[in-house]
Amino acid sequence: MYWEDIELGLRSDLGSYTFTEDEMIRFSRMWDPQPFHIDPEAAKSSFYGGIIASGWHVAAVWMKLMIAHGRKRAAEGIVSRGGVSPGFREMRWHQPTRPGMTLHYDSTTHEKVELKSRPEMGLIRSFNRGLDDAGKPVMSFIGQGFVQRRPK
Amino acid sequence: MYWEDIELGLRSDLGSYTFTEDEMIRFSRMWDPQPFHIDPEAAKSSFYGGIIASGWHVAAVWMKLMIAHGRKRAAEGIVSRGGVSPGFREMRWHQPTRPGMTLHYDSTTHEKVELKSRPEMGLIRSFNRGLDDAGKPVMSFIGQGFVQRRPK
Repeated sequence: MYWEDIELGLRSDLGSYTFTEDEMIRFSRMWDPQPFHIDPEAAKSSFYGGIIASGWHVAAVWMKLMIAHGRKRAAEGIVSRGGVSPGFREMRWHQPTRPGMTLHYDSTTHEKVELKSRPEMGLIRSFNRGLDDAGKPVMSFIGQGFVQRRPK
Repeated sequence: MYWEDIELGLRSDLGSYTFTEDEMIRFSRMWDPQPFHIDPEAAKSSFYGGIIASGWHVAAVWMKLMIAHGRKRAAEGIVSRGGVSPGFREMRWHQPTRPGMTLHYDSTTHEKVELKSRPEMGLIRSFNRGLDDAGKPVMSFIGQGFVQRRPK
């Protein structure tokens, strides 16, 4: 799969992930130790009324599922020639992720960019989401990844 | 510290963090298992020529240091009435983070936003960076946080 082969508007279902209170607390103790992420008692009297996942945890799960999806595709013979990202845009946490919630992640290609600075690569922008069981967004962001161009 | 008390242009030094290959591999095995993040041998023949930290790891360290900074300020009696974020913008990874590199993180307030939708809160936007020893950017993004307004 070179940059040329990537189809705009293609939605990839990345699968689902259930957030346990245990994992939420473990992640946040290390990276985001705010009371409403790590302390069930203190979280009760917080803005959120209970433990919620760190937004960085919700985002990291997207990355994890994206890599697993790429592996699955590679096993089917569809190898992406990408992996390198210059960063991303517009990370939004639309609603809190609470213990026991299952998020459904997807990624839709929406821009293909040719680069003067890197003629051997193209940039792909994708719109990425984590949805709750009702299909309402919990997290979204615009991802970016370089993909090799087909050699001429 | 209510929203009204926050000064624009104030730079907070969040401290430094040294990335070990061990921790880089441990983080990425869980959240971003790409060969150039987890496999020293495979990384050698990758685009990067060696193991680099996941960009999500570089960002998570910012969060960790930001919380530690808030705790230190709280111990000095300066309690921020914030912590809730709707998301962030323009995450950029400017250069790879390699084993043994030390990044120096900071955060500078640059926008105060009044909200019709949440009159009891204001939004603070900050420009956040992780710099290498030479002061060149490794990571940057625009953070956003709600802060309570002073009761009238």
